[in-house]
Amino acid sequence: MKIGVLGTGMVGHALASRLVQLGHQVRMGAREATNEKAAAWVKQAGTGASQGTFVDAAGFGDVAFHATVGQAAVELLSPCAAALRGKVLIDVSNPLDFSKGMPPTLFISGADSLGERIQRALPDTRVVKALNTVNANVMVNPGVVKGDHDLFVSGNDPAAKKQVSELLVGFGWKPAQIVDLGDITTARGTEAYLMLWIRLWGAVGSPNFNIKVVR
Amino acid sequence: MKIGVLGTGMVGHALASRLVQLGHQVRMGAREATNEKAAAWVKQAGTGASQGTFVDAAGFGDVAFHATVGQAAVELLSPCAAALRGKVLIDVSNPLDFSKGMPPTLFISGADSLGERIQRALPDTRVVKALNTVNANVMVNPGVVKGDHDLFVSGNDPAAKKQVSELLVGFGWKPAQIVDLGDITTARGTEAYLMLWIRLWGAVGSPNFNIKVVR
Repeated sequence: MKIGVLGTGMVGHALASRLVQLGHQVRMGAREATNEKAAAWVKQAGTGASQGTFVDAAGFGDVAFHATVGQAAVELLSPCAAALRGKVLIDVSNPLDFSKGMPPTLFISGADSLGERIQRALPDTRVVKALNTVNANVMVNPGVVKGDHDLFVSGNDPAAKKQVSELLVGFGWKPAQIVDLGDITTARGTEAYLMLWIRLWGAVGSPNFNIKVVR
Repeated sequence: MKIGVLGTGMVGHALASRLVQLGHQVRMGAREATNEKAAAWVKQAGTGASQGTFVDAAGFGDVAFHATVGQAAVELLSPCAAALRGKVLIDVSNPLDFSKGMPPTLFISGADSLGERIQRALPDTRVVKALNTVNANVMVNPGVVKGDHDLFVSGNDPAAKKQVSELLVGFGWKPAQIVDLGDITTARGTEAYLMLWIRLWGAVGSPNFNIKVVR
């Protein structure tokens, strides 16, 4: 499959590398078509890897991942609206605000979420929030966390969530680990969970953990 | 032990009943010393159960639980400052705002929490946030959730957290299930988690669930 990965940070890098490893053609998008981090990734990832602007990567992919820093997301994604029309966008970002120091707070809370803002900015794209509750390493290799644990998906379109689940299964997630929370407003839940995730990171002593819903 | 339970709602009722069942002397506190819900509870709970104002219940207990609706917490607890001086207060409340309809949002987020507000209102009391991440039924009977699952405690005083853990063990929690997140600021994490808890309730179809941290 052709996949766009929007973002050149740790998360974008992990997603793009794993997708190439799985045999997909991946274009990493950045503000500048010649972004140095993307160029270094293309050289390292080899066959199947390419780079371009955010709009290039969005247009290239049959689906795309959004993995930029949350604060700039709507500004960077809005110009991609035409390139993403009718496609699925997997939003893995979180509205983390580091401006007041560590630990971060959320710059969106209450009756809104970053997932919803992105869906409003891209009304003709089917946005699915997923993977934002785990570290980049766990996202693409769920087996690094031993035992059973869960991943959450939020989105308005059931067919889009099904397509995302298939991509997640490609990463190694089992279908039974994928919990459909409902429409995109349920991203308010997974984004707010980051406030607990950060403290659990401290208590666990490693970012390679996750949670399991136990009944 | 003598224990004050501040609050006559579902959570206060569950805590107070379980504590009497475990052999403690429990005074349920309300705005009015003759509160009807507290009177009905006293009649039902029998030996060891009594009622009074919030200040009465706070003064009666060697320790106290705070289980009122979050919105009024600081207003109701501030007059209890002298009665709670030097004692441990277990805050099980959440800053849920139902004023904009369902599902609720949080009326405190960002760089603050209800746990911290209560600690600031009661500077001579050792506030420990605990039990706020599970339903009242699970709080006092963790075995209703099958399998292993975790509970979080937040507070500035290690000795107070140890005392709270002993009370939790009395409810049926195993020491290994109790995760110390750190100081009272970590209540920001467990309170924000409620935004996910509400959506998980929908996905699970029952409030009798919890999460396990998997490494």
